[in-house]
Amino acid sequence: MKLLLELSFVGTDFCGWQVQPNGRTVQGVMTETSSRLFGCDSLVTGCSRTDSGVHALSFFCTVENGLDGCPIPPERIPKAYAALLPPDVSVRRAVLVGADFHPRYCAIEKEYVYRVRTAPFPDPFGYGREYFFPAPLTERGVEKMRETAAALCGTHDFSAFMAAGSKITDPVRTVFSCEVRRAPDGQTLEIEAAADGFLYHMVRIISGTLLEIGRGAREPESVAALLKNRDRSEAGPTAPACGLYLKRVKYPEGILPPKNV
Amino acid sequence: MKLLLELSFVGTDFCGWQVQPNGRTVQGVMTETSSRLFGCDSLVTGCSRTDSGVHALSFFCTVENGLDGCPIPPERIPKAYAALLPPDVSVRRAVLVGADFHPRYCAIEKEYVYRVRTAPFPDPFGYGREYFFPAPLTERGVEKMRETAAALCGTHDFSAFMAAGSKITDPVRTVFSCEVRRAPDGQTLEIEAAADGFLYHMVRIISGTLLEIGRGAREPESVAALLKNRDRSEAGPTAPACGLYLKRVKYPEGILPPKNV
Repeated sequence: MKLLLELSFVGTDFCGWQVQPNGRTVQGVMTETSSRLFGCDSLVTGCSRTDSGVHALSFFCTVENGLDGCPIPPERIPKAYAALLPPDVSVRRAVLVGADFHPRYCAIEKEYVYRVRTAPFPDPFGYGREYFFPAPLTERGVEKMRETAAALCGTHDFSAFMAAGSKITDPVRTVFSCEVRRAPDGQTLEIEAAADGFLYHMVRIISGTLLEIGRGAREPESVAALLKNRDRSEAGPTAPACGLYLKRVKYPEGILPPKNV
Repeated sequence: MKLLLELSFVGTDFCGWQVQPNGRTVQGVMTETSSRLFGCDSLVTGCSRTDSGVHALSFFCTVENGLDGCPIPPERIPKAYAALLPPDVSVRRAVLVGADFHPRYCAIEKEYVYRVRTAPFPDPFGYGREYFFPAPLTERGVEKMRETAAALCGTHDFSAFMAAGSKITDPVRTVFSCEVRRAPDGQTLEIEAAADGFLYHMVRIISGTLLEIGRGAREPESVAALLKNRDRSEAGPTAPACGLYLKRVKYPEGILPPKNV
């Protein structure tokens, strides 16, 4: 059987998604729990390799084992996992998929949100869950961030927004939308980006660059040069992992049921 | 000087507000940090004794020491504390008050909110921050909770909603409002209550009783008998601490500035 699971997890106490020799990972926990739940070795494959400290509101993985069909009705799978999983990861829904489905290669769109707190004092409830950035952002500063975000949309070579040393042969991505939203209380800001795929650290470098623009340390026009020169060292810093959330992964129609099963 | 601070804190890793010999408390952390910040012994007095695991969106305490005036302008106090406090407690604002101000006895109204997750699977981001109660609540069930909440408003002897063994001589309180709100996604519920004061465990016992009504294990009419018979053993269970938040403390007009200082 091949099961597709939608997860959410708090990244704080995970060394990212991918299994590694030392360190607790989401893939490690899901592999161990799936093997316990189904009573046989399970292969768990994710839709993305999230970094240490990065969160997921919606993350997809497949679970494969040698079983002929699913011994638990898919609608009962979230509850069955809930009894075994640690509190920082949860299965939101489950659906059986065909053997050729791959959670990473079948994804046609991903959306991330980067959360920033711009108030002068930190919020204890946001610790590890948002980037505390106490620089005051004026309305004009946020407006400039929005202009820049809009300029990043479209198909570009995003080499300047990719971690130095990444082994990616094709740094061209299509950003479908990039928006900057400020909460009505003026204390938090969300940078949301949807694309056909993201390079390593891309959303965090975009966020770090937009925040430089917001606080007046960089002009929106500099982004055209970044896209043209493709030089990572000219872009802003990589914003911390704790502010980043994988929010949505889109698959071709017909794979996921419209509602929770 | 006597300084009034508005705090917020995540209760998870605190053994409540009040200093105790063994165990980390908010009062202990605030006393130690205030003494460091002002360079002299500081007496910290809170508006309420929250239990272990209970959170505060807004909590007030005074800081007294022998200093003649405040050596730091009050508007810079939140930032000064932020540099010294651990991440699970924060100072939101600060204002100088008169020597006769007492954060507990001067309060004229308090508001608590109790957060419940009623979805079939837990939310990792809500762990320790809401009560996971996977019983399905029908619309009719929530409607019954609302009717009961309304019936609790007014001046009553709330002995049935007070922890057994409490040493309170006057169990009469006036509940100004008690509301049950369901989030649009149907997965979370908030029980909000405002009163001139609350008995020990009162909001948690009200919440436990309302949830029994919501899932059909008790009828709204039973509450009239609870208020009449004043018997704790007839009320519902004490809902867990993790769902409870002190949300608002009201003082007479003129003590707090209308906005953050």
